[in-house]
This record gives sequence, structure tokens and C-alpha cells, in this order.
Amino acid sequence: MDLDDLPTPALILDRARLARNTQAMTERVKALGVGLRPHMKTAKSADVAGLAVDGNFGGITVSTLNEAEYFLGHGITDITNAVCIVPAKLDQAAALIDRGADLKLITDNAGVAKAIAAHPGPRDGAFKVLAEIDCGEHRTGVVPESADLLDIAGTLAAAAKAEFAGVLTHAGHSYACRTEDDMAAVAEEERAGAVRAAERIAGAGIPCPTVSTGSTPCVMFARDVTGVTEVRPGVYMFGDLFQAGLGTRAIDEIAISVLATVMAHGRDRNQVYIDAGGLALSKDRATAALDDDCGYGLVCDAQTAEPIPGLRVASVHQEHGQVTGDGPLPFDDLPVGSKVRVLPNHVCMTAAAYDAYNVIDSDEGGGGTEVIATWGRCNGW
Amino acid sequence: MDLDDLPTPALILDRARLARNTQAMTERVKALGVGLRPHMKTAKSADVAGLAVDGNFGGITVSTLNEAEYFLGHGITDITNAVCIVPAKLDQAAALIDRGADLKLITDNAGVAKAIAAHPGPRDGAFKVLAEIDCGEHRTGVVPESADLLDIAGTLAAAAKAEFAGVLTHAGHSYACRTEDDMAAVAEEERAGAVRAAERIAGAGIPCPTVSTGSTPCVMFARDVTGVTEVRPGVYMFGDLFQAGLGTRAIDEIAISVLATVMAHGRDRNQVYIDAGGLALSKDRATAALDDDCGYGLVCDAQTAEPIPGLRVASVHQEHGQVTGDGPLPFDDLPVGSKVRVLPNHVCMTAAAYDAYNVIDSDEGGGGTEVIATWGRCNGW
Repeated sequence: MDLDDLPTPALILDRARLARNTQAMTERVKALGVGLRPHMKTAKSADVAGLAVDGNFGGITVSTLNEAEYFLGHGITDITNAVCIVPAKLDQAAALIDRGADLKLITDNAGVAKAIAAHPGPRDGAFKVLAEIDCGEHRTGVVPESADLLDIAGTLAAAAKAEFAGVLTHAGHSYACRTEDDMAAVAEEERAGAVRAAERIAGAGIPCPTVSTGSTPCVMFARDVTGVTEVRPGVYMFGDLFQAGLGTRAIDEIAISVLATVMAHGRDRNQVYIDAGGLALSKDRATAALDDDCGYGLVCDAQTAEPIPGLRVASVHQEHGQVTGDGPLPFDDLPVGSKVRVLPNHVCMTAAAYDAYNVIDSDEGGGGTEVIATWGRCNGW
Repeated sequence: MDLDDLPTPALILDRARLARNTQAMTERVKALGVGLRPHMKTAKSADVAGLAVDGNFGGITVSTLNEAEYFLGHGITDITNAVCIVPAKLDQAAALIDRGADLKLITDNAGVAKAIAAHPGPRDGAFKVLAEIDCGEHRTGVVPESADLLDIAGTLAAAAKAEFAGVLTHAGHSYACRTEDDMAAVAEEERAGAVRAAERIAGAGIPCPTVSTGSTPCVMFARDVTGVTEVRPGVYMFGDLFQAGLGTRAIDEIAISVLATVMAHGRDRNQVYIDAGGLALSKDRATAALDDDCGYGLVCDAQTAEPIPGLRVASVHQEHGQVTGDGPLPFDDLPVGSKVRVLPNHVCMTAAAYDAYNVIDSDEGGGGTEVIATWGRCNGW
């Protein structure tokens, strides 16, 4: 089947771009000399994970236990769930470990550490738990100097059915940076915070084997990773318009787009309507924070995925995307019934509206628009 | 199972509130003296549709052919797909008619009308098509005075396998109103535009049996519906914070909430983190346009769904919701592991992240927090 035959809206994944992105990150992280534990919260796909772990040690990161269960079912065992665990989910975590997962959890809370220590745990083995460190984002996490940090590590290290596994941090404030120097500075803040926390723990006589850092911008622009053992970028696999604005991936490296059909013209208002609206693109407006606001996405040629100059989705209703441009729209090139592709603002949000990727390969012959595979996604909780 | 035992995040539907909302709208529309064709794009659930059509003529509105197929599979046949059809979807539409759907399509384009007329059509019967009218929203639709309107009606009326079924309009600009008088004025604009279009068509000798109008605000505040045959509100079934701001549903009538677990405390920053983030709540920020900006949702008691004064989800990451308040947060009442419910900004977007509703009934005994049913949803395209 060709792209042109797909019902719209549809999620398109260009395998050629994906493979270049995953290979580039694997090489970048090898050059840094740390492990790459790709974050699968964006792709939520075993097929994508296959490319992301290729050439690396095989571990992944997830954002829900539902994802952990999905990836375990697809043969990936070394999994870190990088969102603070709540006590009610420990039974599910124990069951995953009993099924063979080498699962790592995180917490930033001394009470939760005690709840983990008090839980009967998996049949064999133990809960492996990392302490989440706040390295400056001020989301979740304990600061490296906090008393809670040693409390958490001590509680877990002393527990029969738990094991203190190290520290983990996420410098999400790198997303507020606009220059490579600023991102490098946040990456250093991240490294220094995680390493300082690890040193305090080790200084208290508790082994701290893992020091885990890394958003896509931090990994791309870090200048020193001394003391770090692994990094966990995720969005680099696909890229998106926000990442293009940060400079981590170029627009022609974005591997995901939404195929849409032109369904109406508003010639008097210089508007074209496509059948990809708020549900198909998401309501994310990440690029509103950039100099180059892409609205709800950039409109591209359906065959080549090259942006049509100036065209963007300016507003959305549930099933309507309203396209505008810098000048008069090329109505004759976009007749009702014709197709376009839309590059997403924030791919994690856009991809979540779909159960599957329609995979093409732009390096293949015939224009590279043949749908060569359908790759499933694991959504929900 | 009780609410407290549900894995989080989870979508909660209060059947008592839903039933009151659907009954109130049925009575309102009966008082207006028109038909109620509830729009199922919000709920996408056959169980909800059962309540919405109860006491009405049985027809529904949908926003995708995928929804039409789902509802047909659940025994509802009278279905209007109120988004402009594109030619590539006519085969699917014909197949639905062949399976028994009394399906109505819409278009605002003379070229699409010709494509419909040229299509082989369903085996028996014909495509029933309404012309979409722009009554002032300036999204899709032809203006009542346009030459295209008569062209579309004439093309369809003359076709062997199509039937011109009437006019349909949506006054989405009612969402920009902030007073009942303003909403009543938009409702009158909507009515007048649709009726004017129908009169022009009838004046050209083409029957125009259906005159379809109606967003939730327009139906709630319309003062005259002369000439209208049916209305298509949808979000009234559930309500949300934006609708509460408009005054169409009160906060204690909102039937949908997201159950979430407190996963971390940021006491030094006066923040609580819940496990419902951008995916679980959506990135919709509709209430940003209101005086009372609710962020990404209002935080409520998990048992009663009563708002905890001042608490809202101020920002979201993929799986993190960051809760703030007007004053110091009640940390001791919200320990890590405790549950809250979050009322959504825009329920159409929030509900779309879930495959199913966990149904409770707040009128039942025992606090009304027992999960009495699971109702499926039809997502995707």
C-alpha cells in the first residue's frame, strides 16, 4: 500500500530517518563513554526499541508500568521506570520482576522508601530502586544535599526485599534553553547534581552503582559526563518541531508526521482545512515558546515531507485543522481530497493519539512512500 | 471494586450526573420543539449514547466514519457525520449504508458534491448529503448567500445515487461569548443563517427537509428556533470547566474526572505531583481564555469530586501533573499515595486518552464510589 491509499488522519514513521537518528545517538553516547538507556515513553513501540537499543547495552527507560509490561512481553528485560513509584503499584512491579523483568523503580520520598522496604517484594530477588535527584528543574526529586537522600538510600540498602541501585535525575529545564552554551550549562548542572548525590551516598557507606542523567538536549550538548554511568534521552528517535527549534534534530530529520486530507477551502479567508485536528495533532503548543512558532504543526508535501514554505496549522478543532500561510495559500496545489503531511510540535503528545505507526522508508525506491510495515504502540496505563 | 482500588490515572464517569445532564437537555430541546440529535464525538460510547437518545428520536451525530461504524455496530442507525466528507472516504460511507446505516454526510464544496454524484454509491439507496453553512464561525461551510450553495444542492438533488438532505451549521463562535445575551445572539445568527440557506434552496425548487444547528451554548441559550428541525449539542452530557465558565453546566454537574495518585511532594516549592500529566489530562488550555483559569484542571476530593479550594494542576509533563494552590497546600491531607480527582478543562480532549470509562453513580449508597460498570470508547480513525 502507498501513503496515498491510507485512510486519514494517519501516523507516519519514516524508518530511514529513525534509523539515522538512533544510530547518531548511539555514536554520540559511545563518544561520551557512557551507557545509552533510551527512553521509550515517546515511541512506546517494540520495533522502535529494537533500533534504539541496537549497538547499546540493551536496557531501556519507560514512564509507566504498563509500558514496562509491554516491553517485557517483547523480550526487553532491563527496564527503568523513571517516574516516582507509588505504593499501590508495588504489587504490579513485583509481578513484573517475577516474570523476569530486571526492573528499576525510582522515588524521592522517604515514606515511599519505607513502604517499598515493608512490601513482601518479588518472589525471588528484590525491588531495585534509585533515588530521584532534583538537579535544578524543580519538578520531582530530592536535592543532592538533602537529609532525605541518605534516609532513602539507607532505608532501601537495609531492606531484605529492596536494593538501593543508585541515583537518577532529569534536567527538564534544558527545554527552556535557547543556545548550545546554555544547554551545556544545564547538562553540567545535571551531571554535577547527580554525581554530588552519588558521592554523598557512597560517603555514607552505601554503594551507588548507577548515576543516570539525560534529556535529549543535555546528551547532545554535554561537554563532560565524568561520574555518569548512563543517559536516558528519548525524543531524539523521532525529533519534532520543538526539538528542531532547540537544535537537537533538524527539520529534515523529523521521523514522524501526520498524513491528512484537505477537506475544505476557505478562499475568502485564505484558509485550507485538513482532517487532522486537535485529536490527531494534539493540543500541545510547545513551539509557542520559540521564535519560530509553528502553530499546531508545519504542513508538508505528502510525498517528500518537505515543508511547504510558510504553511502551518494555525488552529484546531477536534477533527479540523485550519491551515494558514505567510502569503496567499496555493489552493490549486491543495485541492479538496489532496493529501499533506504535518510535522508535530511535540511528538510524544501527537503519537499518543494512535495505536500504530504506518512505516515508510524514504531511502527506498519509488519515492519511498510505500507502507512497508505497521508497528504497534502501547498506549494508556 | 471501589474507586480507591483503581490503577491510576483512570477516567471516571458519574452516571448520576450524566443522566441528569442528558435528561435536562432532552427536556430543554422538547421545550424548544425541535429534534435532539446528540453529538457523540465527546463520549464516543454506545452506553452514553443510550442515555443521550433516550426520550428523543434516536438519531445521533458523529465526527468520524470510524465512530459511525462503531455506533452502527451497537444498533444505532440514524447517524449524521458532521465533518466535511472527502471523496476517498465515500467507499467506506457506502459500505456503512449497505450495512444498514441511515447515514448523512456533509460538504461545503461543489467539487465534492460532484464527486459524490459520480460515485457508484451504496447498493441500495443513496448518499444523503447536507450542505454545511457558515453562519459566522468562519471555519468550514458556505455562506447562505453563496452561489456554491445552490450548486451543491442542485448537483446532489439531480444525482441518481445521492439525495440532498438539507443544511447543517455549527456556531462554534458561541465559545467566544461570555454572557447569556451574547450566546443568545450567536444562536440567533446560527438559526437565521441556516434558515436563510434553506429558504434559498427551497426557493430554487429543491426540497430541504433538514435544518440542523446547535452547539451546547447555542441550544442552552437560544430564544427562538423557528425553522430549525434538529440540534446537535454534545459536550452537555459530561460538561467541563470551560463549559462551566460559559454557564452551560455547573461545576457540580461535571460528570467526568480523572482519578490520580499523589506521587511526590515539593514542600519547599508548595507543590504536589500527581500521576496524571499531559497524556492523562490533555494539553488543552481552554480555560486560559476565561477569567477563572483552571490550568490543566481543578483538583477535587477523590470520594466526593468536590473541588479542594484553590487547588489546580498548574503545569504538566507527560506523566506528571504539578498541583499548586492559592495558599499553602494541604500536604498532610494529600500524602504520597493518596488519591484525588481532576475535573477537565475540555472533556472531548481528556476522554480521548482512554479506552474506557470507569462508571460510578454518586446517587448510590456507600458514598457512590463503587465502580459499577466499565463502558468502552471508540477512539482513533
